[in-house]
Amino acid sequence: MTLADLSVFSDPRSVAVVGASADPAKWGYWLARGALRGAARRRVHLVNAKGATIEGAASVRSLADLADVTGAGESPELVVLCAPAATVPDVIEQALAMGAKGFLGITAGIDAAHGEPGLERRLAERIRAAGARIVGPNCLGLYDAATDLELAWGTFAPGHLAIISQSGQLGLELAGLAAHEGLGVSRFVSVGNQVDVTAAELLDDLVEHEQTRAVVLYLESFADDRGARGLVATMARLREAGKPVVVLTVGASEASRAAAQSHTGALTAATDVVRAACRAAGASLVDTPAQAVELAHLLLGGPLPEGRRVAIVSDSGGQGAIAADTFARHALQVPRLSDATRGALADMLPAAAAVANPVDLAGAGEQDLTTYARVVDVLAGSGEVDAVVLSGYFGCYGADTPELVERELEVVGALAGVVGAQRRPVVVHSMSHDSVAVRSMREQAVPTMHTIDAVARSLELATTMAEDAARAVPGPVAEPTAESGKALDYLAGRDRVAAAGVTYPGAAAVRTADELRTAAARLQAPYVLKAGWLEHKTEVGGVAVGLADAAAAEAAFVSMSARLGEGDYVLEEMDRQADTVELIVGARRDGSFGPVVVVGLGGVQAELYRDVQIALAPVDEAEARRMIESLRAFPLLDGWRGRPAVDVDAAARVVADVSRLLAEDADLVECEINPLRVGPEGAVAVDALVLAADRAHPGEKG
Amino acid sequence: MTLADLSVFSDPRSVAVVGASADPAKWGYWLARGALRGAARRRVHLVNAKGATIEGAASVRSLADLADVTGAGESPELVVLCAPAATVPDVIEQALAMGAKGFLGITAGIDAAHGEPGLERRLAERIRAAGARIVGPNCLGLYDAATDLELAWGTFAPGHLAIISQSGQLGLELAGLAAHEGLGVSRFVSVGNQVDVTAAELLDDLVEHEQTRAVVLYLESFADDRGARGLVATMARLREAGKPVVVLTVGASEASRAAAQSHTGALTAATDVVRAACRAAGASLVDTPAQAVELAHLLLGGPLPEGRRVAIVSDSGGQGAIAADTFARHALQVPRLSDATRGALADMLPAAAAVANPVDLAGAGEQDLTTYARVVDVLAGSGEVDAVVLSGYFGCYGADTPELVERELEVVGALAGVVGAQRRPVVVHSMSHDSVAVRSMREQAVPTMHTIDAVARSLELATTMAEDAARAVPGPVAEPTAESGKALDYLAGRDRVAAAGVTYPGAAAVRTADELRTAAARLQAPYVLKAGWLEHKTEVGGVAVGLADAAAAEAAFVSMSARLGEGDYVLEEMDRQADTVELIVGARRDGSFGPVVVVGLGGVQAELYRDVQIALAPVDEAEARRMIESLRAFPLLDGWRGRPAVDVDAAARVVADVSRLLAEDADLVECEINPLRVGPEGAVAVDALVLAADRAHPGEKG
Repeated sequence: MTLADLSVFSDPRSVAVVGASADPAKWGYWLARGALRGAARRRVHLVNAKGATIEGAASVRSLADLADVTGAGESPELVVLCAPAATVPDVIEQALAMGAKGFLGITAGIDAAHGEPGLERRLAERIRAAGARIVGPNCLGLYDAATDLELAWGTFAPGHLAIISQSGQLGLELAGLAAHEGLGVSRFVSVGNQVDVTAAELLDDLVEHEQTRAVVLYLESFADDRGARGLVATMARLREAGKPVVVLTVGASEASRAAAQSHTGALTAATDVVRAACRAAGASLVDTPAQAVELAHLLLGGPLPEGRRVAIVSDSGGQGAIAADTFARHALQVPRLSDATRGALADMLPAAAAVANPVDLAGAGEQDLTTYARVVDVLAGSGEVDAVVLSGYFGCYGADTPELVERELEVVGALAGVVGAQRRPVVVHSMSHDSVAVRSMREQAVPTMHTIDAVARSLELATTMAEDAARAVPGPVAEPTAESGKALDYLAGRDRVAAAGVTYPGAAAVRTADELRTAAARLQAPYVLKAGWLEHKTEVGGVAVGLADAAAAEAAFVSMSARLGEGDYVLEEMDRQADTVELIVGARRDGSFGPVVVVGLGGVQAELYRDVQIALAPVDEAEARRMIESLRAFPLLDGWRGRPAVDVDAAARVVADVSRLLAEDADLVECEINPLRVGPEGAVAVDALVLAADRAHPGEKG
Repeated sequence: MTLADLSVFSDPRSVAVVGASADPAKWGYWLARGALRGAARRRVHLVNAKGATIEGAASVRSLADLADVTGAGESPELVVLCAPAATVPDVIEQALAMGAKGFLGITAGIDAAHGEPGLERRLAERIRAAGARIVGPNCLGLYDAATDLELAWGTFAPGHLAIISQSGQLGLELAGLAAHEGLGVSRFVSVGNQVDVTAAELLDDLVEHEQTRAVVLYLESFADDRGARGLVATMARLREAGKPVVVLTVGASEASRAAAQSHTGALTAATDVVRAACRAAGASLVDTPAQAVELAHLLLGGPLPEGRRVAIVSDSGGQGAIAADTFARHALQVPRLSDATRGALADMLPAAAAVANPVDLAGAGEQDLTTYARVVDVLAGSGEVDAVVLSGYFGCYGADTPELVERELEVVGALAGVVGAQRRPVVVHSMSHDSVAVRSMREQAVPTMHTIDAVARSLELATTMAEDAARAVPGPVAEPTAESGKALDYLAGRDRVAAAGVTYPGAAAVRTADELRTAAARLQAPYVLKAGWLEHKTEVGGVAVGLADAAAAEAAFVSMSARLGEGDYVLEEMDRQADTVELIVGARRDGSFGPVVVVGLGGVQAELYRDVQIALAPVDEAEARRMIESLRAFPLLDGWRGRPAVDVDAAARVVADVSRLLAEDADLVECEINPLRVGPEGAVAVDALVLAADRAHPGEKG
């Protein structure tokens, strides 16, 4: 079955609101009022059980009456389901009979009203079978600025930000915060229960949506039918189309995971995996609606920063210093400017001005408002910074002194001109929240925010997005054959990992003292003896290290086998690299996003300080190296206190190998090397925990 | 000389604005306009060189003319200096001759205009000698809501938040952000160059300022004449008076340190020391103006949270889950509610509601607005949480549907009643920024914010303040005899630290092999040999550990003295505690706040992950224990992975001992134990680096 496309949800030829109401406190009123606003573009039909007049428009008592009124060929293309849950199935049948192509399901609790679990899904199947589609039910509606389609609770101002939200009210909060920052909405869809149309499809639909220039997506769950990897691909497509995606989700805390599960039955994804997925797609995962809107504000403005160096201009020494500290806390740099640039600034500023960065105008802005634009121009053109931030009073002149409105607006124009000419982002932090000048800056793509916090947070996130934009979306992954597996014997696991390219010391299986002597003769001392069939060997005394010679190895074998019994022991050469750092490298399958790879420092660091990096698998060596370099403990690998730097490239190769192993081998469930010993000359794995599908029960699902 | 009190800056009987202007773009206009607003309470004189009429009021051409007009006894008590810098010294003389008691120095650049460095300070001395005082110069003015005193650039709404700021414009930003959140100002003082009246004095003055209920203080430097410790005491007095202080400073980044120094010549204090000073006073150091205002918003509301447990109520599952995640990121807890409380909530909510926490009303709020107050009441009275946060649509009903305004306001009243009855803080996150209901909540001491971020940040900060309120302000400290010192020999340093109560292994000085043999016989093997006169002994091979017996010790001595030459070697018993964790304990003198004590984990943790805690010295054992427990690495001390827990009390005693040592011993400049070996049975110091004043040059200042 080929599903109908989604155009009926963007620009239907006609709309019927079933359950329209004249009571301003009712949803049916808002939907009707909004629908009527598009009456110049499409036929709007209101269906109200009492035939009430709503906002001056007549209504009919049922869809059937509508057929009588309009005659054949005038049936509604999109039907808004706003009527009581008990009537919804009948309304759907009627509408399909009349040729409806789309439904917007506002009404909630249809299953419960009928005492029929699964009824909503069955209605969706019925709708699809008839060649139509449904958004919702239990959604808050949708809005499209390009087509005057306003079918939602709430009021929207037209603009360039699309909002797709699995929670209607959270979507409204996003739209409200955007409006508070002077940003309008291009398209809004509350996806509700997603019994048919999914958030991923709606997102995909935005690639071609002309008015949309950035997207905020709120999802509680990433496990849709197309798979979360498909969502990653869609976000990457949007990025390539110049429409960056900001993602908001829940599940970072136990309380929210429990809430989401009791709410929709959905399992949230681990936040660090979602973050990794977003980075792979060049999208950005943020923590709160406010952060999403701040970042969108920056993304909707002019060019994005290509690096972390920021110049600060302020008309207050205090505000400049606060900005510098705030930027430092957000991983941005405020570099000291060169002699040449300092000189150029000094030439145009009074002696009391500071010109090193932050730049303090020391009254020059007040004396001559054009100073603001001229100083920003010098900084944006210096080549020494990736963004310029103007912080302080600018934006307040006209508000405080009406005589200055025009002059301030001229300078706003000059600032916008600088952005256009220099192709460097200029961000303004103004003490005014929405003066005429502030609104003008926003209209001219000079992002203007009310707090330095918002500037710093959004610059940091945007810079990271710019860095991530260079990444390739991870390649295809094999469909796993099992969800859980059992641990392979040490030697088998080692072989599997070694086959992927990872270096291990020489080793041999030994079941008897005879075999041990033979193996020892072939391997190089010193040795390590391991009880290879045990998953947690170290804890039960199943590992003996530093066995200097064959005799020591044999003694260890006798002692260990007396304690642990017969089994597949392994005699292994002991890694003798000096100046090593121990890493943990692992890969596993995430329930939503599939294979991921993790790298962290061995010992307590990974656990206590959560100093690990995670990425969707597979990663290439360059990406693996970036992961290692992003560890806070990276200095330990890079020549810590005079010790030799270790071979980070070798470690990165192992990370890439392990990531590819899980992406390609459908049988593998999990794989961990703990530790990987990385020295100046290379990286050697000295352990392997590999969980693989149990072949004794093919196709088993754990 | 006893200085005049500051009452002239709060409620002067008469004010003269010298340099008043009729031009709305000039400061003199704003000062004049503001002064005239207090004309019902006090005589206001405007001095304008051209005798212009300003806002309908006549002016005189000079202070001398004023004397003619007003006659004796009518001289201005407070004179605002707004005239050109060149005229300021004459104006001051004239005003003093007329009996002025206070000056508000707006005009900047007096020294430069006269080409006389230090002129401002000499004018201040002249003023003080005449029994008067001056605020500024180079300030932005002051405002007092209680006395209609409005002598500043900007417009203020009356309220309960006092703002004292070393940067005038930053002070205005704070006032503007407060106004944006619906908070008014009780008193505003831009302290300018502080040539006479200091921020600390003005802060002190607020203890008795009735209208002030919370304070935001911005300082670039803490080294005033009374000493930064005096400021700590003042902040603690304000806290005890129920007026918590929020502190903002700069110097966290290299760029801001350089900017502050070039700006005012002032040295910023280390941020971690300022934070420690604030915590000792029960004040809170925040990062940005927005954070300061958010926290003040909470502090100006009802009771403060006594713990970190928060209940969340939302009319959106998505918003509730986002709130839970956000709170978790801010060290707050969202505990699962008890069976009894869940039952009580379930009784009043529909079946679809979530009652575990976050509580999701599932439409019940919309059905009956009183549900919001009733659910909050159950939660606030449950005894299971320390604060209740209501997040979502509440506050928007009346704004979206005018018919609901009254009903929503009734529920606001009920919410305020819950706070009054239950004595638990209720904080609202409303999707409306400033509806009638939102304003009403703020007026009724129910803090209401526009983002969940602000709620989380301010709750976290307020909770920490509440925890810190139980602390005693650190006791008095000895005046140091020197700013720098030289390292003592190891044995001398050890003795100094041991005398403070810290345990060391047995040890003896040895200069010859004979002495070493004698010492070895007296001490218990194994031994450690140290080149005690070297500051960085380990790096140069000046430490030999694990010397099993006297012979091994002698061999080490022979080898080491062959390399390092003669000197004061130390033979020490080697600490043989098992299962130890190594800490670093240190104390030093901060340039602003005096002695501070630091504790952190040994090894790379302290350096790489900045996992250290710092406090003003001296600390008692309880405070020292809190410091250790606050280390992220604390789990390592508390029974990590089945290892025995170490004796944290013993470690805390060492931290307290070292802190007392520096607070009491005026000769000591710095002291560090690295490492302190803490085992299950106690803590033993095995190193000591002690810098003391060089007695060869008594009183020397480094």
